[in-house]
Amino acid sequence: MNALPSKTQHSAATLGTLYGVGLGPGDPELVTVKAARLIGEAKTIAYFAKRGRNGHARTIAERYFAKGCEELPLFYPVTTEIPFAEPGYVSALAGFYEESAQRLSDVLTSGRNVALLCEGDPLLYGSFMHMFTRLQERFRVEICAGVAGMSGCFAAARQPMTWGDDVLTVLPATLDEDTLAARLAGTDAAVVMKLGGNFPKLRRAMKRAGVLERAIYVERGTMADEKIMRFAEKRDDHAPYFSMALIPGEGRRP
Amino acid sequence: MNALPSKTQHSAATLGTLYGVGLGPGDPELVTVKAARLIGEAKTIAYFAKRGRNGHARTIAERYFAKGCEELPLFYPVTTEIPFAEPGYVSALAGFYEESAQRLSDVLTSGRNVALLCEGDPLLYGSFMHMFTRLQERFRVEICAGVAGMSGCFAAARQPMTWGDDVLTVLPATLDEDTLAARLAGTDAAVVMKLGGNFPKLRRAMKRAGVLERAIYVERGTMADEKIMRFAEKRDDHAPYFSMALIPGEGRRP
Repeated sequence: MNALPSKTQHSAATLGTLYGVGLGPGDPELVTVKAARLIGEAKTIAYFAKRGRNGHARTIAERYFAKGCEELPLFYPVTTEIPFAEPGYVSALAGFYEESAQRLSDVLTSGRNVALLCEGDPLLYGSFMHMFTRLQERFRVEICAGVAGMSGCFAAARQPMTWGDDVLTVLPATLDEDTLAARLAGTDAAVVMKLGGNFPKLRRAMKRAGVLERAIYVERGTMADEKIMRFAEKRDDHAPYFSMALIPGEGRRP
Repeated sequence: MNALPSKTQHSAATLGTLYGVGLGPGDPELVTVKAARLIGEAKTIAYFAKRGRNGHARTIAERYFAKGCEELPLFYPVTTEIPFAEPGYVSALAGFYEESAQRLSDVLTSGRNVALLCEGDPLLYGSFMHMFTRLQERFRVEICAGVAGMSGCFAAARQPMTWGDDVLTVLPATLDEDTLAARLAGTDAAVVMKLGGNFPKLRRAMKRAGVLERAIYVERGTMADEKIMRFAEKRDDHAPYFSMALIPGEGRRP
């Protein structure tokens, strides 16, 4: 059974608060007014990134940083594109999340607040969730919702996604081909996340499910260099991990 | 096959632009920076509402209105809670959407821009979609993504929703009980929208699917008077139409 954590269980005035700040799909102007305020007020700003990069989150949020704020980058030890079942992946990530939680905990214990930047919606497939589950019993955590990556892609692709009684399925392309095909055949509308190296498998699954002709491919939706095309018209198999496929619903409508 | 409309097909400088502006889940501070700008720049602001009310959309957005802007309320002739299959519902709504599109068209044809306010994400079960499909071939339409109502509820309820390979199903409680039970049993995580009078049916479906104990009930998520509780602990059957049920995923996690 899931916990239903309370907002107010941590009142120790000596501890800092962790803010999980959703940043939206990529366009810095799609940050919420609240997120912009929280980022601007933060003296310590943490974010996940690939080693050697600034990371998408920092790029989106940077314009809202206060002068002189402290930055706390958390560098992934492995790319998230490795399949979950891969040996070593889980243990490497678990260690990384433990260490990251410890770094945040050190700052919070010293009484300082931390804004942890989260691309998209912090609670949909977000790295923030791994910090939340590790820290929420010991520290006050506030969560600021963000525009989900998929919502940004709906707008970028100009696709009404669900009408009337339509059922929407959101699924990662990391699933096996049979599961993908069955899920896509059994829904009215779909969003497929985490394409990356799963692209050719997804194309086969879409074909089997009879949805390939309806599908839209979206890469870097809402960003300056976004690419949007019919999935079926994409000739190569190269897709970034954070690209998406949309299958809009066709439900009843007045 | 769905159209993949172009952003730039309407360049006639004499026609106004329709902005579909997503407002987020209810907290006015969860409006995006872009939406706040678009609303503030708009000389004509349109919104859907129940007759005799200001409407949620106007309430969320009002603080961003420019002084002296013109308001164009579009009053629903019937409540959206009536089942789609009800005689007269479709024809009443179709007439209303035609008339609303005509009113927007009149303003756009005169060369003025219109910001059409949309609660949540404009492209998920949104009334905006009915205007978009009717107007996008004749006018330039820009869509500004918003925080989906469900994303606001995830944060309000502090529920990480999808982990790893979790599949998320978003479905309206207007579906029949058997369909609801089957959908809820066959997914990792779920969001059930449009509860209203469907509440007792949904409770039965959740029980059959074995997910009742995991489900969270969220009413007016992110608003000052939000109510969040375990679904199983809700004693009455009364739920507003825009309340939601969340069933968080429990997928693999490092």
